[in-house]
Amino acid sequence: MNSIKNRRTIRKYTSQDIPNDLLNGLLEDAFRASTMGNMQLYSVIVTRDAAMKEKLTPAHFNQPMVTSAPVVLTFCADFNRFTKWCLQRKANPGYDNPISFLNAATDALLVTQNFCTLAEENGLGICYLGTTVYNPDQIVEILRLPKLVMPVATITVGYPDEQPEQPDRLPLSGIVHEEIYHDYTPDMIDSIYAHKEALPENKHFVEINHTETLAQIFTDIRYKKADNESMSATLHATLKAQGFEK
Amino acid sequence: MNSIKNRRTIRKYTSQDIPNDLLNGLLEDAFRASTMGNMQLYSVIVTRDAAMKEKLTPAHFNQPMVTSAPVVLTFCADFNRFTKWCLQRKANPGYDNPISFLNAATDALLVTQNFCTLAEENGLGICYLGTTVYNPDQIVEILRLPKLVMPVATITVGYPDEQPEQPDRLPLSGIVHEEIYHDYTPDMIDSIYAHKEALPENKHFVEINHTETLAQIFTDIRYKKADNESMSATLHATLKAQGFEK
Repeated sequence: MNSIKNRRTIRKYTSQDIPNDLLNGLLEDAFRASTMGNMQLYSVIVTRDAAMKEKLTPAHFNQPMVTSAPVVLTFCADFNRFTKWCLQRKANPGYDNPISFLNAATDALLVTQNFCTLAEENGLGICYLGTTVYNPDQIVEILRLPKLVMPVATITVGYPDEQPEQPDRLPLSGIVHEEIYHDYTPDMIDSIYAHKEALPENKHFVEINHTETLAQIFTDIRYKKADNESMSATLHATLKAQGFEK
Repeated sequence: MNSIKNRRTIRKYTSQDIPNDLLNGLLEDAFRASTMGNMQLYSVIVTRDAAMKEKLTPAHFNQPMVTSAPVVLTFCADFNRFTKWCLQRKANPGYDNPISFLNAATDALLVTQNFCTLAEENGLGICYLGTTVYNPDQIVEILRLPKLVMPVATITVGYPDEQPEQPDRLPLSGIVHEEIYHDYTPDMIDSIYAHKEALPENKHFVEINHTETLAQIFTDIRYKKADNESMSATLHATLKAQGFEK
C-alpha cells in the first residue's frame, strides 16, 4: 500500500479546510480497528476553533502546527462512557486501575494510526504530536476531560503544503527477532546505527550542537533523563487525578 | 479504504503459510509509522515454531488462534536497543521510567496497527490478542525479553478460513466531541448503547448467562474488577522487573 510505504510527516498545510463529512467519514472508518471486547474505549476531541488551538499550543511546546493546521485531533483513552453505562445498568464497573488505562490507551492508539492511514490515503497530511503525554494535565484542563478520560495522542491534519524527504529507518534485521529476542552485541549496534550516523544531516546536527556523538543529541538535548523523570511524575499525577491509579 | 472499512477479526486460518518475504515486506512498510524522534522504540518477535506457539498459548488464556495461525507476532516497546547505542556512544541514557515506557508502547502500537492494515490489504486476516498485557511476565520469560523491553501487543496472522459478520460499533456522535468533551447525560448513554443492547446476539448472551443487563456480562463475567486489579499488579511488577519504573 503506497500511502503507508511512501508516507512522511507533514508540518505545513494549505489554507484549505477539511469538510466535516470527510473528517467524520475517516473517523468512522478508523473506528473499525480492533477494540478490546468491542468496548471502544476511546473518545476523539476535534479542535477547529482558533482560540482553542491557541490554548492547546503551549501544552504542545508551541509547535506551530497546532495553530496552522485546519484540524487538531486529540485521541483519548476513555473508560468514562463505558463506566457510566455500567452504572446505569446495575453493573459494578472496575476500570479505575492501571491495566484499564493501558487497555483504553491501546484502543485509542490503534484508532489513531487507522485515522492517520485513512487521512493520508485521502490526500491529507498529518503530524503526530508526542507532546500529548508530556503535558497531559494541561490538555485535560483545556479540553475539560472528566475522570477516566486521558489524552494519549494528538494529530494535526490538513492538506500538505510541503513534500519533505522521507526520513531514514533502521534496517529490518535490527528490529525483527526470530522466535526469541536476540539481544544486541556491540557489533550489531554499530551495524544497526551505521546508516543513521553516516547521514549528512545527522553529521551536521552533531557539528552545530558541538556534541561528540549523534546519541548525545538525544540524551543531552532532545530527550533528557531529567525531563523524562519530571514528565513521568506529571504522567503519574495526571493518571491519578483522572482516576486510573486505584 | 475498503480494507479498513470492511475489516473483521479473523480467528480461523487455512493451512497456507506466509512467505518470509511477504511478512518482512509488510513489517518494513509498517515501520513507516510515526515514531518519537525517529527512535523506532519497538521490536517484533516472529513466532513460527510450533513448540514456541505451545509455550505462548497459556499466556494468552489458551486461545486456539495462537497455535492454529501460521504466524504469531509479539510487538514490544523497546528502549533496550536505543539505550545500548547511547552507552556505546558516550551518551547518558535516561529511559528507565514510566514516560519512556509509554512513549515506546505508543511507537509499538502505531506499528502494530499499520501492520494489521497492510496484512489485511494483502488478503491476510488478523486477530488482536489483548491478553498480552494481562500476562506480560510469562511472555517476557518465554521470548527472553531483556530489560527495557516490554510486550504490548500480539497479533495472530494467516489466510482467512472464515468470513464472520462485521461486529457493531457505537454511533459516531457517541465518540466524537467538538472543541471540548461533552460529558454524557443518562439520556445520551441510553441512546449510544441502544443499538448494541437491541442486537439479538447480545440479548441471547444476557439470556444464557442469566444476567439482568448486557453491561453485567462485562463487569461480572468478561472484565471483572478483581481481575483488573490483579492484572494491574502484574503489569506494575513486570514494568518494574523490565526496568521502566525508576
